[in-house]
Amino acid sequence: MTTEIERKFLVAALPDLTGADRAVVRQGYLTAPDDSTELRLRQKNDTYFLTLKGGGSLVRVEREAEISAKQFETFWPETEGRRVEKERFTGKLADGRVFELDVFQGDLAPLRLVEVEFSSENEAQQFTPPPWFGSDVTEDKRYKNKNMAINGIPD
Amino acid sequence: MTTEIERKFLVAALPDLTGADRAVVRQGYLTAPDDSTELRLRQKNDTYFLTLKGGGSLVRVEREAEISAKQFETFWPETEGRRVEKERFTGKLADGRVFELDVFQGDLAPLRLVEVEFSSENEAQQFTPPPWFGSDVTEDKRYKNKNMAINGIPD
Repeated sequence: MTTEIERKFLVAALPDLTGADRAVVRQGYLTAPDDSTELRLRQKNDTYFLTLKGGGSLVRVEREAEISAKQFETFWPETEGRRVEKERFTGKLADGRVFELDVFQGDLAPLRLVEVEFSSENEAQQFTPPPWFGSDVTEDKRYKNKNMAINGIPD
Repeated sequence: MTTEIERKFLVAALPDLTGADRAVVRQGYLTAPDDSTELRLRQKNDTYFLTLKGGGSLVRVEREAEISAKQFETFWPETEGRRVEKERFTGKLADGRVFELDVFQGDLAPLRLVEVEFSSENEAQQFTPPPWFGSDVTEDKRYKNKNMAINGIPD
């Protein structure tokens, strides 16, 4: 198991994204939230994946296969209403830390979120967000991608 | 929509299968019967498919993609307990009609079923089964592959 220490913020104003890395990310669920199994389609630029998460709360098996664009497009229509589509910009803050800025599209537009990863909890707590960051939503589960895929933008 | 007119029988004794075509067939479900979506893996010899059937009772969308052996094997373990594995022999009866004989393996061994397809209902009714055929189970839904995948061999 890997633990990530991250903080997540709304975005008050888009920063200068010159030099940032840009990726197209689409993910959607073939299964409904109450189904016993979760099957997710995911695209990142020209790479496509199908991921299965088995039922069970303590131990959830995860299996993933890379799939072709054609296979992705065959099943993608069935994720309608359970999708997250976004552009992800990866860049560096003035202090050298990496940020990942998600500019949502489709049903979730015009939401924007930015995440920063830290190497310790202490470091995360001491972090001073730059002026273009908005409210801290790290603890707000409604902003999880999976919840937004089903429930849309939080009120 | 295609309508097939078929009769299905148990097998009293295996016939001479010299000259019959032999295929390995495996199919299994990634989803449980009560889930909103059905996802099925299917292998026929060296060809592999993933098939999705959407929810809804009147109109059920079906989408299918050919997948690689590697992709098949990635997800196959998650079909455990919801599988049909069989050898399918395709041959001809003395009257020239084609039969498909399924010799089940795994949890469904030693069940054997044989099917014959007809071009009309009248022809199906007039059919005289050869001596190696057993009881007619055409109308017995317990012998549907999908039911047996979940419930095993009918009592």
